[in-house]
Amino acid sequence: MTKNRTDIKTNLKARIDQALGRVDADLVIRAVRMLNVATGEVERTDIAICGDKIVGTYDDNYRGRREIDGSDLFAVPGFIDTHVHPESSLVQPGEFDRLALSRGTTTAIADPHEISNVLGIAGLRYFLEAAEGTAMDLRINLSSCVPASALETSGARLDADDLVSLRDHPKVIGLAEFMNFPGVLAKDEAVLDKLAAFDGWHIDGHSPLLGGRPLNAYLACGVRNCHEVTHRDEALEKIRKGMQVLIRDGSVTRDVEALADLIDMTRSPFLAFCTDDRTPLHIAEDGHIDYLIRTAIAKGAPMAATYRTATWSAARGFGLTDRGLLAPGYLADIVLLSDLESCQVAGVIKSGRPVDAETFAGRRLPAPIGYGSIKRAPVDAALFRTPCAGPTGPVIGLVPQKIITEALVLSLPYTGGERHADPGQDVLKVAVLERHGHNGNVGRGFVKGFGITDGAIASSFGHDAHNIIVVGTNDEDMALAVNRLIELQGGFVAVVGGQVRQDLPLPIAGLMSDWPAEDVERRLHALREQLRAMGCHLDEPFVQLAFLPLSMIPHLKITDRGLVDADHHHLITLDGDRVTVG
Amino acid sequence: MTKNRTDIKTNLKARIDQALGRVDADLVIRAVRMLNVATGEVERTDIAICGDKIVGTYDDNYRGRREIDGSDLFAVPGFIDTHVHPESSLVQPGEFDRLALSRGTTTAIADPHEISNVLGIAGLRYFLEAAEGTAMDLRINLSSCVPASALETSGARLDADDLVSLRDHPKVIGLAEFMNFPGVLAKDEAVLDKLAAFDGWHIDGHSPLLGGRPLNAYLACGVRNCHEVTHRDEALEKIRKGMQVLIRDGSVTRDVEALADLIDMTRSPFLAFCTDDRTPLHIAEDGHIDYLIRTAIAKGAPMAATYRTATWSAARGFGLTDRGLLAPGYLADIVLLSDLESCQVAGVIKSGRPVDAETFAGRRLPAPIGYGSIKRAPVDAALFRTPCAGPTGPVIGLVPQKIITEALVLSLPYTGGERHADPGQDVLKVAVLERHGHNGNVGRGFVKGFGITDGAIASSFGHDAHNIIVVGTNDEDMALAVNRLIELQGGFVAVVGGQVRQDLPLPIAGLMSDWPAEDVERRLHALREQLRAMGCHLDEPFVQLAFLPLSMIPHLKITDRGLVDADHHHLITLDGDRVTVG
Repeated sequence: MTKNRTDIKTNLKARIDQALGRVDADLVIRAVRMLNVATGEVERTDIAICGDKIVGTYDDNYRGRREIDGSDLFAVPGFIDTHVHPESSLVQPGEFDRLALSRGTTTAIADPHEISNVLGIAGLRYFLEAAEGTAMDLRINLSSCVPASALETSGARLDADDLVSLRDHPKVIGLAEFMNFPGVLAKDEAVLDKLAAFDGWHIDGHSPLLGGRPLNAYLACGVRNCHEVTHRDEALEKIRKGMQVLIRDGSVTRDVEALADLIDMTRSPFLAFCTDDRTPLHIAEDGHIDYLIRTAIAKGAPMAATYRTATWSAARGFGLTDRGLLAPGYLADIVLLSDLESCQVAGVIKSGRPVDAETFAGRRLPAPIGYGSIKRAPVDAALFRTPCAGPTGPVIGLVPQKIITEALVLSLPYTGGERHADPGQDVLKVAVLERHGHNGNVGRGFVKGFGITDGAIASSFGHDAHNIIVVGTNDEDMALAVNRLIELQGGFVAVVGGQVRQDLPLPIAGLMSDWPAEDVERRLHALREQLRAMGCHLDEPFVQLAFLPLSMIPHLKITDRGLVDADHHHLITLDGDRVTVG
Repeated sequence: MTKNRTDIKTNLKARIDQALGRVDADLVIRAVRMLNVATGEVERTDIAICGDKIVGTYDDNYRGRREIDGSDLFAVPGFIDTHVHPESSLVQPGEFDRLALSRGTTTAIADPHEISNVLGIAGLRYFLEAAEGTAMDLRINLSSCVPASALETSGARLDADDLVSLRDHPKVIGLAEFMNFPGVLAKDEAVLDKLAAFDGWHIDGHSPLLGGRPLNAYLACGVRNCHEVTHRDEALEKIRKGMQVLIRDGSVTRDVEALADLIDMTRSPFLAFCTDDRTPLHIAEDGHIDYLIRTAIAKGAPMAATYRTATWSAARGFGLTDRGLLAPGYLADIVLLSDLESCQVAGVIKSGRPVDAETFAGRRLPAPIGYGSIKRAPVDAALFRTPCAGPTGPVIGLVPQKIITEALVLSLPYTGGERHADPGQDVLKVAVLERHGHNGNVGRGFVKGFGITDGAIASSFGHDAHNIIVVGTNDEDMALAVNRLIELQGGFVAVVGGQVRQDLPLPIAGLMSDWPAEDVERRLHALREQLRAMGCHLDEPFVQLAFLPLSMIPHLKITDRGLVDADHHHLITLDGDRVTVG
């Protein structure tokens, strides 16, 4: 609403004239089969567009200064990703824009939680500036839990006043995923400060497996949705309690198949889609919100309800009343499809303009920030030694395509008072190294499930504090992987037999590349091949790696402070003893 | 959001403790059969309430400092009247509050259009002040079309800047029914000024029978709903074009029976209920939104979808995200019913407090305003003479329970160069007298359908300019009725044979009584009996009378400027000739 009243009146006059057909419309999509998500009907119609708004539907005789022949196409509203950390696409916001908008995602509601954990308010400001320049409508929910927990060391902190200082930015919707639900239940003062500061605003939830009275208490504080739902029963309780369930399908958090049968017209207003964390390779190969739509429909979800969920329901759940429907007065955010059931995107129109290379060339985006964020001197192999009392102890059990882990207890080779990795039973050593220059912490443990038979992989992308995380069969390769990562100032590294075999630099806050998305994709391909050669057949090994430190998610996790019993929110030793948190 | 953060934190802590059952809740409704409008399920549960919020559902073991036994009751969310002119209840806003809230209407979205036409911005301020004191949540949409048209003389004008000056009041939602759609289509500057000033805000529509490209153009300007829909096909086109259809049932605008079969879960988000104009007698005898619910269900509308329409869908269509569902974190606006299907209200809880006499006794409401608003000297019978060219001319045809009229052409008794009323064919003389002290205009015509065989009735309540309107069988009784009305400074009057037989004073702007609602009801009963004795068997003769001057509604109307061809928006003479509007 920065335009003045005179300009708006000029726009209104043009809309009236074009809607009435007194003059040609700016753009007309002729004779397209339009899916109306309000009624579920598909009907052939022209769609007339003036400026950024639709001005005519249900008419077969509009004329445009520019016309698109829609006779072989379907038209649906632009898709909305209701919860995404664009940093997980490993590219700058402008590159995420290019990837996702081309797939039909015309609005994304971003939580710049990753960069905020490294850079604090500077990270939020970077994303707000980017959001003013992207071709898609990038909206921001302010990262509510930085740090996410006291059980790890983040680069920065955001308190209630930091968040309030950005609250009135036109791109801000409200508060992003309030993941510290234990803090809510414990009436933590700093936690309640943030909730109180956003009283009456939109507040995103994050409450995996929470139910019963604890869920009641969490909701009583104004939380409105959850993207961490993995089971149908969990979804039903949450919908009964008024939550909007944001069905997620990220790169390891693959929930759409399990939750697709929730989708119908009755529940649709209480559903939406999100990607949360999706790599650029994954977007390029499988898609973005388009993937969730086609997967849900393939699983039997009713088509019209699925598209309503991806568009209108998503928009309304976040207070976006100007989009989500193809109707006069609504934003001309339109996806053209060659097939409705399989959601094959043939073209995208954002705010009335067909999206093409020129769309992206003309943007004004901020220069990248956050170089030099890996504040750590080179390490040596001895740093990874794991002295403990005996062969048996806790081991993190990876669950492919889930961010939940299992808490295992296994016996491992034990020599010289140290427990060791055991590739024979698919157990690697894992370590998390604080990298923000605060305390040099190192947390050590073991993890089962990577499949790596020899070597090490390291990453500076590790939820949520984004310390360095490394797993390996031996301490020497682990040290080399970490040192290469320090040299790159962030990224992904794969080491075998004392040699760096492949890497991807991520110098922007240790999270994002400053390369074009296609170059990042190519390097991720190469890394995937390298990891397969090392024995790892996970779809997304670096994403699974990145979730190992996420201590807000059950069951056993690891941070720079050590192993975390994520069910009870305390640290444990390699021998399984509880550690009092300072 | 006037509370400070410390107070909010104190609230949040109490909610958390009560939701978890650490302490007793402020109020618990025990073992009630709750209709969940999110899922359509009815399940027995406790509802725990802390302060003004629900903090617990789907639990059978809450304890409260106060408890209500719900075992014989159903619980549903508080009802929302999405479009109402409380002036039509003929009582002060505080009395409307008492009438409607007791019937389960916990939120009403008011357009103080009537008082604004008489008193201008002072009328809006009076309602905003009242809205801060009512027990129900009275929200205000700012009256967008004062005057409603150039075809009549109103007491006041509101321009875009007047409306903008009140836009940020916490009770304001946006712009009320934008009835001047011809002005939109004609790109009238003052009309577009208002739309431009509210660009991006909520804008209520009003577009009876509008369809096709004219509807597209109207919607392209940001209008979002319509309460003037009377036909199913009209509703379907409007829903297809993204409008929310506010199904109305007022005192003469009885649309719920015709539109009930639109209601289902798919369309519910694009529907809501409203009363628009309902007399206190009508509310007392038939009900308020509860009446619409029971009537829709009786006509076959699915129960859960009907309740969703009356609550959640209504709330969301107006950006009210804190209500419309019985779930933790939502406002504790609850209606207790002895029967769900017939919507028998057994109790009402507003913001966590059971509604009783004390609820209303404790309110702080503004003193009435607008006394002395009938600025007109006594008249004599000669004022009503109707010289014209011959016996045949236009006659307004009343349609019982509709505000649309028919445009008839009839032959009437013609003597001395004057046409006369003809009770034999149920045709009366009608006149509208400007009463705001601006020009003393008198418009004259004939109307068929009142049934009055002898005498006259007059009113100072006449949409939208609220000039004096009088109908009668003879000029003498018409003059007496008008003079009594001037003496009362507004109201309803019935005269027979040179005697005032019954009246109701409405001294607040000539629109509202300063009596308690029950006294107004009693007098309305007496007036109804009087009118029946005069031969008039309309359900609501004074409401039908009040709509005769509404020139925005088809087909033939009358204002202080004369007869109006409402289809073509111009004046006509008693001989049917078109008059150029100055």
